[in-house]
Amino acid sequence: MMDFPTWMAAIQARTESALAQCLPAPATAPARLHEAMRYAVLGGGKRVRPLLCHAVGEIFAADGGRLDAPACAVELIHAYSLVHDDLPCMDDDVLRRGKPTCHVEYDEATALLVGDALQTLAFQVLADHGATIAMVALLAQATGSRGMAGGQAIDLAAVGKTLTVEELEFMHVHKTGALIRAAVLLGAHAGNADDKALLQLAHYASRAGLLFQVVDDILDAESNTATLGKTAGKDAAQNKPTYVSLLGALHAKEMAADLRAEAKEALAPFGDRAQRLHELTDYIADRRF
Amino acid sequence: MMDFPTWMAAIQARTESALAQCLPAPATAPARLHEAMRYAVLGGGKRVRPLLCHAVGEIFAADGGRLDAPACAVELIHAYSLVHDDLPCMDDDVLRRGKPTCHVEYDEATALLVGDALQTLAFQVLADHGATIAMVALLAQATGSRGMAGGQAIDLAAVGKTLTVEELEFMHVHKTGALIRAAVLLGAHAGNADDKALLQLAHYASRAGLLFQVVDDILDAESNTATLGKTAGKDAAQNKPTYVSLLGALHAKEMAADLRAEAKEALAPFGDRAQRLHELTDYIADRRF
Repeated sequence: MMDFPTWMAAIQARTESALAQCLPAPATAPARLHEAMRYAVLGGGKRVRPLLCHAVGEIFAADGGRLDAPACAVELIHAYSLVHDDLPCMDDDVLRRGKPTCHVEYDEATALLVGDALQTLAFQVLADHGATIAMVALLAQATGSRGMAGGQAIDLAAVGKTLTVEELEFMHVHKTGALIRAAVLLGAHAGNADDKALLQLAHYASRAGLLFQVVDDILDAESNTATLGKTAGKDAAQNKPTYVSLLGALHAKEMAADLRAEAKEALAPFGDRAQRLHELTDYIADRRF
Repeated sequence: MMDFPTWMAAIQARTESALAQCLPAPATAPARLHEAMRYAVLGGGKRVRPLLCHAVGEIFAADGGRLDAPACAVELIHAYSLVHDDLPCMDDDVLRRGKPTCHVEYDEATALLVGDALQTLAFQVLADHGATIAMVALLAQATGSRGMAGGQAIDLAAVGKTLTVEELEFMHVHKTGALIRAAVLLGAHAGNADDKALLQLAHYASRAGLLFQVVDDILDAESNTATLGKTAGKDAAQNKPTYVSLLGALHAKEMAADLRAEAKEALAPFGDRAQRLHELTDYIADRRF
C-alpha cells in the first residue's frame, strides 16, 4: 500500500485532470468566461473535499472512476463559493490560492458568472457521469439556502456581532460542514454504502467538518499570508467571530483535539478499510496551511 | 375545454402555489435570505416558461402534478438569472416586475446569495420530485456556461459593439433560448415523449425562443416603464444591440411574424393536441408587456 502523501498526491493529480476535462475548453465560446472558470478552479487548492470523497470510497472498494464525478462536483461547488465569497459585496478579497482573486484578474461581472456557471457545472458533471437522483438531491441540499449558501448568509449577518459557541457552530455546520458532509456521503453513495454506513459516515462528517473549521480559524489567526496563499488574519480584521476569538487559541486547540478523536472514533466500525480516512483526518487536523 | 386566458390564469396560479411550497418558509433560518428568495420569485412574472412546460405536457396528456416540478425548476433558474442580471456589476437595474430589484430591497450580498440559492433550489426541486437524471442534465446544460450563463457573458461583451444579426442570434440562442428550450423539453420528458417528438419540439423551441426575444426587443423599444414593470428603453440607453436597433422596428416585426409562423408549423405533427401550445405561441407573439 502506498504511503499517505503519495496517495494524496495521486488523488490530487487525478482530480486536477478530471476537473480540467469537465471544464469547457478555453477556446469554446464564450472564451473569456471559460478561461476565467478554469482560472478559478485549476492549479491550486488542497482538494480536501475530493480527498474525502475518494477516502470514503476506499472503505467500500469503490472504483476510482466512479468517484471522480462526485469529487469534481463538490470541488466545483467549493470553487464557485470561493469566487462569490471573494467579491467586493461579500468579503472583498484580492488573494486566493496565491493568485489574484477571479474578479481582480478578470472583472466583477465575469466573476459573478464564473461562480454561477461553476455551480451549474457541478450538477451537470453528476448528471453526465452515472450519478443517481439521490446524489443530485444530496448535493443540492448541501449547497443551497439550508446548506452552504445559508451559512454564508449567517456569516454575513454575524460580522461585528458576539456569537455564542452554539451560534458559531450553527454557522459553520452550514457554511463549511454541509459540503464536507456531501463529499463524504457522495463517496459513500458511489460505493453503494448501506443506510447504516451512511448514518455512521454522516456522524463522522459532522465531526470532521467542525474540525476542519476550527483548524482553519487557528491557522487564520497564527499563520501569515504567504503560507496560507490567502489573506491571513482576515477574520480578526473583519471583526468576524471565530473559535479562536471566542475560546482563545488554547481552548480552540483542545477543541480540535477532541473533534479529531471523535471523528476517528466514528470510523471504528469500518476497521482497516477506513485507513485512508483516518490518515486524511489526521492531515486535516495537523495541516499547516 | 376552457378558453386560453382561463387556462393561462390557472397555470399561473398553480405555479405560484407550487413555487411558494418549494421555497423555504420565510421563518426558516437564515430568515432574511429565505424572505429575500421569496421576494425575488413570488407575486410577479408572466411565468412564460412554466406555461410552456405545461402546454407541452398537454400534447402528451401528462399529469399536471408531474409538470409542476420542472415548471418550477425553470422558473427558479429564470428568477435567479434576473436577480444576478440586475446587480450593479451587471445591468445595474432598480426595477423588476414593478418592484425594487432584490439588491435594492435588500442588499447586494443578499441578492448574490439569493440568486445562488435559487439556482440550487431548481436542481433540488427536480431531484425531490421524481425527475430523471436526463432531466437534470437537460436543465444543467441550458443553465450553464454553454447555455444561459454563457449568453449573459456574450451579452456583456457585446455592450457598445455593433453585432451582425448572426452574432445577435448566437447571443440570444444562449441567453434566453436555452432556458425556453429546457422548459419545452422538460415538459416533453415529463410526458414521456419519444425521441422523434423531442426533436420536433426542440425545433419548435428554437423558433419560439427567438420569437420571444424579438418581441422583447420591440417592447423594450416601444413601451413605457409602467407597462413593462421593468425599466423600458434600457437596451438603447445601455447601447446594447437589439433586433430593433439592427433591423429597425418594421423589419423586426416582420421577423417576429416569420418566427411565429415557423414555430406553429413545427407543431403541425401534433395536430389538435398542441392547441394550448399554439395559443401560447400567439400570446408570446402578441403580448404587450
